[in-house]
Amino acid sequence: MSFLQTVRGVSGDRAPIWIMRQAGRYLPEYLAIKERSSFLEMTRTPEIAAEITLQPLRRFPLDAAIIFSDIMTPLEALGVEIQFNPGPSIVHPLRSREAVERLTLREPIAPYVGDALRIVRAELAPEIALIGFGGAPLTLAAYLVEGSGSKEYEHFRQFLRAQPAAMHELLDRLTELTIRYLRMQVEAGAQAIQLFDSWAGLHDERTYREFGLPYYKRIMDALAETGAARIFFALGASHLLDAIAEIPCEAVGVDWRTGLAGARAKLPGRTLQGNMDPAFLYADRATIAAEARRILSDGLGGAHVFNLGHGIWPTTPIDAVAHLIETVHAFKRA
Amino acid sequence: MSFLQTVRGVSGDRAPIWIMRQAGRYLPEYLAIKERSSFLEMTRTPEIAAEITLQPLRRFPLDAAIIFSDIMTPLEALGVEIQFNPGPSIVHPLRSREAVERLTLREPIAPYVGDALRIVRAELAPEIALIGFGGAPLTLAAYLVEGSGSKEYEHFRQFLRAQPAAMHELLDRLTELTIRYLRMQVEAGAQAIQLFDSWAGLHDERTYREFGLPYYKRIMDALAETGAARIFFALGASHLLDAIAEIPCEAVGVDWRTGLAGARAKLPGRTLQGNMDPAFLYADRATIAAEARRILSDGLGGAHVFNLGHGIWPTTPIDAVAHLIETVHAFKRA
Repeated sequence: MSFLQTVRGVSGDRAPIWIMRQAGRYLPEYLAIKERSSFLEMTRTPEIAAEITLQPLRRFPLDAAIIFSDIMTPLEALGVEIQFNPGPSIVHPLRSREAVERLTLREPIAPYVGDALRIVRAELAPEIALIGFGGAPLTLAAYLVEGSGSKEYEHFRQFLRAQPAAMHELLDRLTELTIRYLRMQVEAGAQAIQLFDSWAGLHDERTYREFGLPYYKRIMDALAETGAARIFFALGASHLLDAIAEIPCEAVGVDWRTGLAGARAKLPGRTLQGNMDPAFLYADRATIAAEARRILSDGLGGAHVFNLGHGIWPTTPIDAVAHLIETVHAFKRA
Repeated sequence: MSFLQTVRGVSGDRAPIWIMRQAGRYLPEYLAIKERSSFLEMTRTPEIAAEITLQPLRRFPLDAAIIFSDIMTPLEALGVEIQFNPGPSIVHPLRSREAVERLTLREPIAPYVGDALRIVRAELAPEIALIGFGGAPLTLAAYLVEGSGSKEYEHFRQFLRAQPAAMHELLDRLTELTIRYLRMQVEAGAQAIQLFDSWAGLHDERTYREFGLPYYKRIMDALAETGAARIFFALGASHLLDAIAEIPCEAVGVDWRTGLAGARAKLPGRTLQGNMDPAFLYADRATIAAEARRILSDGLGGAHVFNLGHGIWPTTPIDAVAHLIETVHAFKRA
């Protein structure tokens, strides 16, 4: 069954597979490009971003390509200055309502991402789906307020509790940005869109329902008009599935800690995507195959797109990836 | 109702309160000691550790004291070299079965912690409980293999998948260490013991049942003989409550993402401890009080020890802490 049909809920006799961060540092051909280009050049030069996007597809029989980019990429259209050294950091973290109100949307939003998508779509075999993506507003807000990656996101969580109205103002602006950015990606050739809520796991359900859900519904409703297949992925969100069930989308991606059978019960009618622990790719071949089959069995009872439960790690052995994809493709869904 | 009675399941008309990291950096009197002493001196000098333990009790009407120490402290008795600069790091991270097999337990285990407990118990008002603690083996193993704090703990999770037998060997040794260390604390005056599984949230339930649960049961069973009240606290563990329910202990601490009412249903007969988001202490007074009362109401239906859902942050305003404790003590449980 093709990736797109599966995302749309058709439960075929085999599960399609793609891998979060499949275009990335575990591939020597990616590292060769990285050697001579900065991360910003890589994401902003359509030919390079397209080449990186296509690299894993040349090596492996994956069922979908995902555009090479970063969830921070569209923030520059709000006047936000970002540095990569090598992880992203915000030059002036947002810490006041005034700073939020200074954010002004200037189009076009990252037009080079659209250009890269057009190049990829033209080169990609027609049966391989092309996925675009964006960051969920609450995750983008976490980076914007904190300024960089963090274990606890103290500044962000403090801002949310101390200035909830300013936080809503920020989320509203990020939602408008995200809707336009994702629409542009669909117009440029993305057939599916994944919204990444990488820091969903910071929040309790009550907070998530107030500061996440309304914005995610707006984004997914706006995307419905484009005809793109919609995937929502949240990390560390086992405790948020009842809330996530209210987000309009075709597929929900879950991480390795959320059992697929339990998720199936909470998300009836949705395609599930996931969820092998990336650490299993360091085990021996028999263990990798057994774990993949366990997850495939767990995913029965509805449509399932196989994926890892989180992005693949840079030191992953390439042979393990090939072995995983073979195992998934060989598995006959009962 | 006293803290110890509440932990043992007596559901009185008010909830006792203590605060994770209540002896710490948000207190100017702690910072004054920190100015002139290294972290190692602070944990290893019984008079200093006792003084730090008592500081928050002099300022606030808390219902329990927790000994000032670190979950890494007992690891030196296994021959592990730890540096603090300022966070803890392992000089030679464990990355092989051979390294695990070289760990040899040499008693006494951190005897200065016992000395500090004796000083505190002698100075503390008799109605205030004294809590000892240790790190859960799976969390200690995460630090030992990774070498330092990490977002994803790739080395640790890779080791667990690639060398499960060596991981069990490591967990077995850490369990033996922990049992002896915690028994020593009870003999020195600790009336309750909290086992901290700070990195429980890395694992899915299947993995937690294999690599966590058997060891935690052994520790808690060994502690039962000492008569100490047993508290198990795991961070990011909403998805692990069914497994945690099998750990023999009187109280279970949950973080701010695990609703108390839902936890009550999964943990019948246990005292619940928690769970205000530490970020709420930056909100205005009315919001802090409303959130505290919401959690107190959520905790009805069984015994409840009020706490934050995670350690208090270093920049927390002291007035907010005083206001929280007043609010909790004023709340009449229906």
